[in-house]
Amino acid sequence: MTTWKNYDELASAKKLEAVKKTDLTEVLSGDKGAERVRKYSVPMACGLKYNYAAKQVDDETLGVLSELAKEAELIAKFKDLYSGEVINTGEKRLVLHQLTRGQLGDKVVADGVDKREFYVAQQKKIAEFAEKVHSGAIANEKGEKFTTAVQIGIGGSDLGPRAMYIALENWARRNGCFKMEAKFISNVDPDDAAGVLESVDVEHSVFILVSKSGTTLETLTNEAFVKNALKTRGLDPSKHMIAVTSETSPLAKSSDYLQAFFMDDYIGGRYSSTSAVGGAVLSLAFGPDVFARFLDGAAAEDKTALNEDILQNPALLDALIGVYERNVLGCGTTAVLPYSQALSRFPAHLQQLDMESNGKSVNRFGEPVDYVTGPVIFGEPGTNGQHSFYQLLHQGTDIIPMQFIGFKDSQLGIDVDIQGSTSQKKLCANVAAQIMAFACGKSDENKNKNFKGNRPSSIIVGDSLTPEALGALLSHFENKVMFQGFVWNLNSFDQEGVQLGKVLAKKVLAHETDGALKAYSDMFEI
Amino acid sequence: MTTWKNYDELASAKKLEAVKKTDLTEVLSGDKGAERVRKYSVPMACGLKYNYAAKQVDDETLGVLSELAKEAELIAKFKDLYSGEVINTGEKRLVLHQLTRGQLGDKVVADGVDKREFYVAQQKKIAEFAEKVHSGAIANEKGEKFTTAVQIGIGGSDLGPRAMYIALENWARRNGCFKMEAKFISNVDPDDAAGVLESVDVEHSVFILVSKSGTTLETLTNEAFVKNALKTRGLDPSKHMIAVTSETSPLAKSSDYLQAFFMDDYIGGRYSSTSAVGGAVLSLAFGPDVFARFLDGAAAEDKTALNEDILQNPALLDALIGVYERNVLGCGTTAVLPYSQALSRFPAHLQQLDMESNGKSVNRFGEPVDYVTGPVIFGEPGTNGQHSFYQLLHQGTDIIPMQFIGFKDSQLGIDVDIQGSTSQKKLCANVAAQIMAFACGKSDENKNKNFKGNRPSSIIVGDSLTPEALGALLSHFENKVMFQGFVWNLNSFDQEGVQLGKVLAKKVLAHETDGALKAYSDMFEI
Repeated sequence: MTTWKNYDELASAKKLEAVKKTDLTEVLSGDKGAERVRKYSVPMACGLKYNYAAKQVDDETLGVLSELAKEAELIAKFKDLYSGEVINTGEKRLVLHQLTRGQLGDKVVADGVDKREFYVAQQKKIAEFAEKVHSGAIANEKGEKFTTAVQIGIGGSDLGPRAMYIALENWARRNGCFKMEAKFISNVDPDDAAGVLESVDVEHSVFILVSKSGTTLETLTNEAFVKNALKTRGLDPSKHMIAVTSETSPLAKSSDYLQAFFMDDYIGGRYSSTSAVGGAVLSLAFGPDVFARFLDGAAAEDKTALNEDILQNPALLDALIGVYERNVLGCGTTAVLPYSQALSRFPAHLQQLDMESNGKSVNRFGEPVDYVTGPVIFGEPGTNGQHSFYQLLHQGTDIIPMQFIGFKDSQLGIDVDIQGSTSQKKLCANVAAQIMAFACGKSDENKNKNFKGNRPSSIIVGDSLTPEALGALLSHFENKVMFQGFVWNLNSFDQEGVQLGKVLAKKVLAHETDGALKAYSDMFEI
Repeated sequence: MTTWKNYDELASAKKLEAVKKTDLTEVLSGDKGAERVRKYSVPMACGLKYNYAAKQVDDETLGVLSELAKEAELIAKFKDLYSGEVINTGEKRLVLHQLTRGQLGDKVVADGVDKREFYVAQQKKIAEFAEKVHSGAIANEKGEKFTTAVQIGIGGSDLGPRAMYIALENWARRNGCFKMEAKFISNVDPDDAAGVLESVDVEHSVFILVSKSGTTLETLTNEAFVKNALKTRGLDPSKHMIAVTSETSPLAKSSDYLQAFFMDDYIGGRYSSTSAVGGAVLSLAFGPDVFARFLDGAAAEDKTALNEDILQNPALLDALIGVYERNVLGCGTTAVLPYSQALSRFPAHLQQLDMESNGKSVNRFGEPVDYVTGPVIFGEPGTNGQHSFYQLLHQGTDIIPMQFIGFKDSQLGIDVDIQGSTSQKKLCANVAAQIMAFACGKSDENKNKNFKGNRPSSIIVGDSLTPEALGALLSHFENKVMFQGFVWNLNSFDQEGVQLGKVLAKKVLAHETDGALKAYSDMFEI
């Protein structure tokens, strides 16, 4: 039985404030700096490593963070979660996304069903469907193969699957498993759906409607938009659409779809990339085997998150250092900076994952908390960001902690040698250089060219971005966010903050407004 | 003669701290709330409006901000700038991007040239080139028309032009002026160039190499990458490439290009969308007339930025309210939230524009400042963001001021009516609802469903996103950032913070490293 305590009730949290601050310009200098880089490194699954040598921690800080992990019973709480406790207390739900990719503990039975078996069965159903689409056994009205998959979903039904698709597109092309192009429609802005439909061969497209509840306004509107486009072309929508939803949703047994695949209430939208929500589009695009490899990577990384020793648990360590930066060092924003064009939308996914999970002011019992919680997350791929917002990261008045990600090899392996090095080497040299520039800075008499340093970062490094590595990366951040939610005593699995806007938007559309809201509506002549 | 003073030396800055805070839940309630929405609105050019009713200011605050504008001589400094003073003191350069779209004051002569005439001449040269490409007078080796334009550039040579292209792509399709598709290669990651080349018809592509100095590592590397791809296909690179650069760069007179178009040192990369940097790709994609309309919108909006009355000067007012939020209310981040899929990359452009201009800790004389300067900027289009990070914006522990952008009409005009309203109406209803939800919140006994309100936002509203409106929007933010830089006494036009990383990356590639930097390089086996 674990005890849920607020962060500021923990003795180790108070102790953390008293710890001497680490000066990166000092600890990273000379031979001991090199030694620190080699030592402050934790193996992850699939050959990845989490390196925190450029974070403002030392052995003393790490000792207190370890106490914090124990005092807050973080591993025990994770165990509660994957064993099927009602961790999402607000909505009275279990939290089972890890179960979509592996079995971390004992069997979890809910609603009379072995949930691991349920998720595996859905994965299998999707695999069979995808293979039939690839073989042409399932085809359009003319018996012609589908060539494009178009996902219709928003939030968790869009950002994660889209980021994963972009991450593996080139890898799949190179490795001969690129089956179909995927596109995504998310925004209720009609220009989104119209633009995507303009860019695809509708007659040869299969549309994946994704909504857990089956009631998401944007998604149903875009479904109607797409159905309309299909009918206009003389096509039968029910021969072009599948649904990913919960078994209890209105979409589940509708004859409007070729087939329906299920997730359930125990998979939060932002944690659903490894469920049918990511499974359908990724299996169609790259084949079920690639999707299975992605799940294997996530499952392997989940296991590293079980370790009680924070120095052997990358997600836990990352979470704790983040708490130190947020609550002690006072940093309100974290930048996610992948040196990999394939991860161009990964920061946007992490933005939802983190900010929607931990952007909260009440604890899991609904009591206001007196400490800061989840930070703002933003990011763009490097080296692009270097020519954009890095100026502020280097010389701005606020300190923004950074999470770098980098790979030794490119995905496509097509490269040129210019001025004695390949593009890939240049990319890697830049990320190494940036970490040191941020951490150690450089004194200059011209203060405009002066870099103070002590701008902390960590890096996740791997050989190359494979499906397994991507799964491990995803799992790392999901578990990091979960652990931070535990430390802050939040329910990281609901999102009550999105409700009020929905309610007011309905009022606007129903013309049931007055005062300022009516005045704002009038601007748009609604 | 204007006087440059630090922000904390201004009497009005001190006064600003003492002003009573505005409670949005109060001032936006009832009939006076509606009145406030109608009153706190400033016309912009091209039918746009800047509405700040949901910002935490009242007539008293605005009075002090007006004093601040006078005391800091903001309009006089703008006048100095467009009249050709050396405002970029660090690099000893004039700042003339406004001159690419209009003449705000007297003739500016630099290096013996009338600069307005110079920029117009480049625009004309580009127009002639683009028309020849469209007519087929300039064609590939086989005499076949070019169908795609591929921009090779990074930072300001990428983000702005790319955001503008995406913003107008659908508009151009609907209005019969879509001439060629454009693609962009920016990252030194070889997967970027390889992926883009995979997606285009190289034989019918014209490549636009954009680098002011002609020495940008990423861009030269990608040029080599592209040349290699052209040669591999038996094509002559010099028949497929143009350059946009400065007249003094190594690219200017090279026979490697069909033609070269010029900008100069007085146009900062992040301010170059209205110069040849944006001009070449946008004129090729949509025709010179569309580019000219875009410039007209920017020129018209520049004129509104001349007004001494802050209540009639949207960029100035926006800048001053931003300073109040940053320096008095203590907000470190601003979210940019366009309710328009076409503006999906506009926040990424503003991120560079703002963070690279004002993310600085020393004033224009190179002296460290004791106050916070430019905030972090991030954003994604609505309604997508509502299903992602808005949770934190509504209920997180930090206050994040917001900049909404919305349009009454969609660009393509293709829409469906579901549940009694079109998608476009739903989109607009959502932005109106969000502004009020953020500002006024909603009490709930269940604190998990409680919204405190007082989360400030402004909105820029227009009829639809045309080339003119886009130009006006761009100018608004450029001038806002400029005014904030004046208030903070920064040089907003250099970027010394990007240098150190470049220097260290070169050392890594030359294997001239030791200690921690070598250890980081070893991770990548460089």
